[in-house]
Amino acid sequence: MPDSVLIVGSMALDTVTTPFGAVENAVGGAGVYAGMAASFLAPVNLVGVVGDDFPAQALDELRQRGVNLEGVQHVPGERSFRWTGSYEYDMSDATTLSTELNVFADFNPALPAAYQHSKFVFLANIQPRLQLQVLDQVRSPVFTMCDTMNYWIENARDDLLAVLARVDLALMNDAEVRQLTGIPNLARAAGRVLELGPRHVVIKKGEYGASLVSADGHFSLPSYPLPDVVDPTGAGDSFAGGFIGLLAWLGTVGNEALRQAMAVGTVMASACVEDFSLAGLRRLTVSTVYERYQQLRNMVQFAACPLVP
Amino acid sequence: MPDSVLIVGSMALDTVTTPFGAVENAVGGAGVYAGMAASFLAPVNLVGVVGDDFPAQALDELRQRGVNLEGVQHVPGERSFRWTGSYEYDMSDATTLSTELNVFADFNPALPAAYQHSKFVFLANIQPRLQLQVLDQVRSPVFTMCDTMNYWIENARDDLLAVLARVDLALMNDAEVRQLTGIPNLARAAGRVLELGPRHVVIKKGEYGASLVSADGHFSLPSYPLPDVVDPTGAGDSFAGGFIGLLAWLGTVGNEALRQAMAVGTVMASACVEDFSLAGLRRLTVSTVYERYQQLRNMVQFAACPLVP
Repeated sequence: MPDSVLIVGSMALDTVTTPFGAVENAVGGAGVYAGMAASFLAPVNLVGVVGDDFPAQALDELRQRGVNLEGVQHVPGERSFRWTGSYEYDMSDATTLSTELNVFADFNPALPAAYQHSKFVFLANIQPRLQLQVLDQVRSPVFTMCDTMNYWIENARDDLLAVLARVDLALMNDAEVRQLTGIPNLARAAGRVLELGPRHVVIKKGEYGASLVSADGHFSLPSYPLPDVVDPTGAGDSFAGGFIGLLAWLGTVGNEALRQAMAVGTVMASACVEDFSLAGLRRLTVSTVYERYQQLRNMVQFAACPLVP
Repeated sequence: MPDSVLIVGSMALDTVTTPFGAVENAVGGAGVYAGMAASFLAPVNLVGVVGDDFPAQALDELRQRGVNLEGVQHVPGERSFRWTGSYEYDMSDATTLSTELNVFADFNPALPAAYQHSKFVFLANIQPRLQLQVLDQVRSPVFTMCDTMNYWIENARDDLLAVLARVDLALMNDAEVRQLTGIPNLARAAGRVLELGPRHVVIKKGEYGASLVSADGHFSLPSYPLPDVVDPTGAGDSFAGGFIGLLAWLGTVGNEALRQAMAVGTVMASACVEDFSLAGLRRLTVSTVYERYQQLRNMVQFAACPLVP
């Protein structure tokens, strides 16, 4: 049995429009996507908050997948966090139409005793102060990683820097890495992030894949090519859930394990974007994970340099 | 001795401004960049046109590198093709400030007898009608590839489709693949390009690398990570020159060779963008090509899927 993964993040009702359809108040949120993806690989301890409107069926589904919901607070009389957004044809950028914090406004993550010994921790994109609060409650983590967003880089920079000083890995998209460091060149910007504390930075590049930058080098993976991308919502969080889940599954965090985690994360993201809400991850099987992982591996393989130096 | 590579493309005087400096009337042009890159690997037959103002020193340099200039026309009393452009901090898009066709306006590529037996052909980005004219003059090519641009997709679509029906490989950036096919999803758009004729399409993604799509699958490579990108001008052409050059060097065009060509192209592009004009390629040595190629190979290597399906 792998060690448990601790995930803290939003549990949301999303209203999303893409060129391929729309959903209203569909279950989503970074914590839910990441928890769902990680559940393929390890027991998950989820920390979050919901209102009266969060579907009991969704909570049941998570429980059945081995996600412990003891750390999910329910605030009676309140509504869950809600996000409304849309995507244009190229699917690269979401336009946020509205955000209702609701129960999230006064959220104070408190870790149940059983969670405090989690060895693998993913702090999804929430207020950095809350990420710190979670880190304070975890006793002896083996590997910690955080996500963030442009809003916190601009409005909670000091707290975010405090988080970065304490995590093993920072997960950000390319624009966020540039914004955080003020450096347009990505290789250089990634180097600057490493100086802020984390031993690794993973740069998410949407349809262009993701890169892992560590002191000892770069690793890059393309995204898994899909002819039908239906809704990109949750891709980054599914990636993160698969990533931390595989580390827990392996029980190691060396360079080789991190590269394998990148591949599993990439596969989880590919399943996520094939449908709205959790439908893509719900349909995913371990055998598809295996197959896509091996395809990705083949997609980047090439023979040694034929030139003689 | 490898077979000769035939390259047709512009020979230009570029005036370029980037956040890291500027050059005025510096030697450039797709044919020159591609020829310079290919010259590391195979004898090059260059087809192009220059005016009185093209530096004799640049022509000498090409000759010394094994580039045959018999097919380069000199139009007395006229000026060479000139391009003026600039790049912003993220270096992803050039802004064209001016284009002077000059000698290029009435260019009619005529292949010297010695060129007509070239086995490996790169038609750089010129008017598709001229690309067709070159194809008509090559007797029995082993491998042909073409580049193009948004302007021809819009204004010379029929000629471009005729080119695509006749080449083995189409080289385009992601925006051009989308524009040509009207399909936003890249995997699907690449599939549509294959239906137009070529057996392979290479999608250039700038700093995100490049993908090779063939009927039997996808191959992807990240760009070589550089902390100092000085001027992206010529990167795609250097890629193409390295690509076709390696095929000639190997003398084969199978899947394995194409993947190795992608890697050599990626290395050539990395050298090109490290400085203005030809300075980066001029400094490049075979030993650096070898080293970067092997680093790229290591950058994408990861172990088999640990999960059991």
